[in-house]
Amino acid sequence: MVFTAILASLVLPRQPFAEPFDRMRALGLSELGAHRMLVDLTKRIGPRLSGSEGAAKSIVWVEKQMREIGLTNIHRIPCMVPKWVRGDRESAAIVGGGKLAVCALGMSIGTPSRGIEAEVIEVHSLKEAQELGRRGRGKIVFYNRGFDPKLASTFEAYGGAVDQRFGGADAASKSGAVAVLVRSMTLSKDDEPHTGSMGYAGGVKKIPAAALGIQSADRLSKALKKGKVRVTLVLSCKTYPDVPSASVAGDIQGSELPEEIIDIGGHLDSWDLGTGAHDDGAGITQSLEVARIYKKLGLRPKRTIRIVAWMNEENGGRGAKTFAEKAAKEKHYAAMESDAGGFMPRAFGVSKTKLERVMPWLEHLRPFGIEQFIEGGADADNAPLEPLGATLFSLTPENQRYFDVHHSRNDTIGAVNPRELEFGALAMASLAWLVSEEGLD
Amino acid sequence: MVFTAILASLVLPRQPFAEPFDRMRALGLSELGAHRMLVDLTKRIGPRLSGSEGAAKSIVWVEKQMREIGLTNIHRIPCMVPKWVRGDRESAAIVGGGKLAVCALGMSIGTPSRGIEAEVIEVHSLKEAQELGRRGRGKIVFYNRGFDPKLASTFEAYGGAVDQRFGGADAASKSGAVAVLVRSMTLSKDDEPHTGSMGYAGGVKKIPAAALGIQSADRLSKALKKGKVRVTLVLSCKTYPDVPSASVAGDIQGSELPEEIIDIGGHLDSWDLGTGAHDDGAGITQSLEVARIYKKLGLRPKRTIRIVAWMNEENGGRGAKTFAEKAAKEKHYAAMESDAGGFMPRAFGVSKTKLERVMPWLEHLRPFGIEQFIEGGADADNAPLEPLGATLFSLTPENQRYFDVHHSRNDTIGAVNPRELEFGALAMASLAWLVSEEGLD
Repeated sequence: MVFTAILASLVLPRQPFAEPFDRMRALGLSELGAHRMLVDLTKRIGPRLSGSEGAAKSIVWVEKQMREIGLTNIHRIPCMVPKWVRGDRESAAIVGGGKLAVCALGMSIGTPSRGIEAEVIEVHSLKEAQELGRRGRGKIVFYNRGFDPKLASTFEAYGGAVDQRFGGADAASKSGAVAVLVRSMTLSKDDEPHTGSMGYAGGVKKIPAAALGIQSADRLSKALKKGKVRVTLVLSCKTYPDVPSASVAGDIQGSELPEEIIDIGGHLDSWDLGTGAHDDGAGITQSLEVARIYKKLGLRPKRTIRIVAWMNEENGGRGAKTFAEKAAKEKHYAAMESDAGGFMPRAFGVSKTKLERVMPWLEHLRPFGIEQFIEGGADADNAPLEPLGATLFSLTPENQRYFDVHHSRNDTIGAVNPRELEFGALAMASLAWLVSEEGLD
Repeated sequence: MVFTAILASLVLPRQPFAEPFDRMRALGLSELGAHRMLVDLTKRIGPRLSGSEGAAKSIVWVEKQMREIGLTNIHRIPCMVPKWVRGDRESAAIVGGGKLAVCALGMSIGTPSRGIEAEVIEVHSLKEAQELGRRGRGKIVFYNRGFDPKLASTFEAYGGAVDQRFGGADAASKSGAVAVLVRSMTLSKDDEPHTGSMGYAGGVKKIPAAALGIQSADRLSKALKKGKVRVTLVLSCKTYPDVPSASVAGDIQGSELPEEIIDIGGHLDSWDLGTGAHDDGAGITQSLEVARIYKKLGLRPKRTIRIVAWMNEENGGRGAKTFAEKAAKEKHYAAMESDAGGFMPRAFGVSKTKLERVMPWLEHLRPFGIEQFIEGGADADNAPLEPLGATLFSLTPENQRYFDVHHSRNDTIGAVNPRELEFGALAMASLAWLVSEEGLD
């Protein structure tokens, strides 16, 4: 038996990685460090919308984790961020009918304090809203195009519907509408409304925008099939002037090529509903866990590993922008992001030009759930680093449950499985190790 | 565009499957039939332990589903089953300390109605319990070897611990113990006790056996580190004489090779805690969904598809035995089982001899989450069909969450994601179609 083992170590060229990767797995699955940190982040700090007290506290929290892990060069990358506040009043109801489950979309203006009451008109696209013309005047436009359930990928389904959330207000305003209601971006059947960012391009009157829970959207649509429906909408949300905030980063300095930086991160801010457990507390704590595992096992990478907690992904992307501006003066070799939920890993997205290079690494990542490398790798925060020469990687976990919780009150620690979360961290730790030790050329 | 499409259909040899598989996916993901049936089964009938009223009702329920789907040759395969009843009393407590979360293990004898009070001794293996000798006399033996969290597969971790549950009572009885408590078979951190079958081999005195919730097991172990601990245990469970029951089967008759039967099934019985949603309502409703999709799309397979609801997998395997006895007179070409939870599919186990044959089919199954064929294919109910010549297949879903719910009150419909469940049904429908149309030779 011993002889066979020695022989195997001679003939298997990739044996060097079996040892650190086995130790990583044993440590990670025994200690479940990502989950322990995520419990702390979500329960002690909770939601972390840019400009909020939670966001400010979370910056200090990340620095503390980084110090405890033993990172060096811990520093903030300052950025100004929007400060949008939901306020304490949001409600909607069918006049003469029942209440509707509603939440303001992020960055929406509020309604007058007495609310808005208007007739509702249902549409299924931005184009349809713009073409309402005078029929839209004075109305509440109700966007009710749901996710296409036939699509296997829920992210693809999201991509096919989210234009209503982001651009719905402006499109309806062009036809003279006074507010918009948007069917929540989910395939879940509960009635939790899902928020998320919307925007005003300028040039048309700003009108309030809110999301309806799926059951509420179905109820409203059903009522509209029977005749005219009036709805009241009250939103107390408000945008204040920008405030200072920051992303946070900390390093494990490389032993041979310290100037070549491998960024590993997620975004620290979250929507105010729920506690941002999957989105993106998962990415933050998985990234910290990569560093914790390296340090605890005494693994010193050749290249510098930089753990990054980006600020303001959800409603502005200011953290990613200022991070990339600073990064332009350094050599960012690769940038890995986790921002698709803390579910079981299935694949990594990777910059197209390096797809062939990394393919042989698949065998080392299979024990952590990774079955594929797919073309891509760009998430919201690492994408600006690609023009600087960084190869991008994005963790791609199982996605069927993600939009059940995304941007809603359901996004809490209870929806996260501690081992699934840890497997994501382990997949990232392993891939980052391969990038650092083997290089991408 | 039209020209390109025609050309593609000429050069791609596997194009024939794109069309039915796309239609299957569109129908399945739109209607989520497996989940609709699973809601009905779990909410209307609930738990279905062999010999219980729920089990009897579930037989009628399956027949009704099969009729509605339009299956033919719907028939019962009778079997006698054990009738074990938990009764209304089960409790445990540390004398002078707090309550312990406990449940009787399936097939255990009860305690005297006044309960058992005895000193507890902690062990970590059957061997250790047997070797207690006189130190075990009059004691409650507490098996506290948990799952090895370092193992990536939770099924492997289960396999490394479950001997304590199944054989713990006999091993401790050999040293004169009066009862056993077994740490629950889970990696979850809550305090729900997980039941499951145990057995008495005969030749030693039968003693009662119960599972402890993880928190209770940890509490008891901690107390034992401080000194002697006495525990009281009351179990009112009882085994009655065997009663008649049945498995159920129904067909879509093959158009060209009707005598070659492809079995697709799961087990109908479930433990009495929870409602057997993942174990194995998932397998039952996924199998029914395969047939529903075929019928609704007008897909007529060459070989006969037989949907099977096996009885008594959990505590006896009597249904699988009588099914195989009857099958010996027929030609069972393949047998596919789903009994590992209704989570997102990742692989199919397949009989070793056919692994190479099926490998080219992987490309067709990837859209349904299947990334691998792995050697195996045998589950508890289809395994007896292999000696009859059937190729075995077992659906292998993501397993990290399975033992959080397995055999506990947590195994309810709320733990099932409707789309993940449906992907399992679609993977099975697609693979069965390939087996039927392409053959295994």
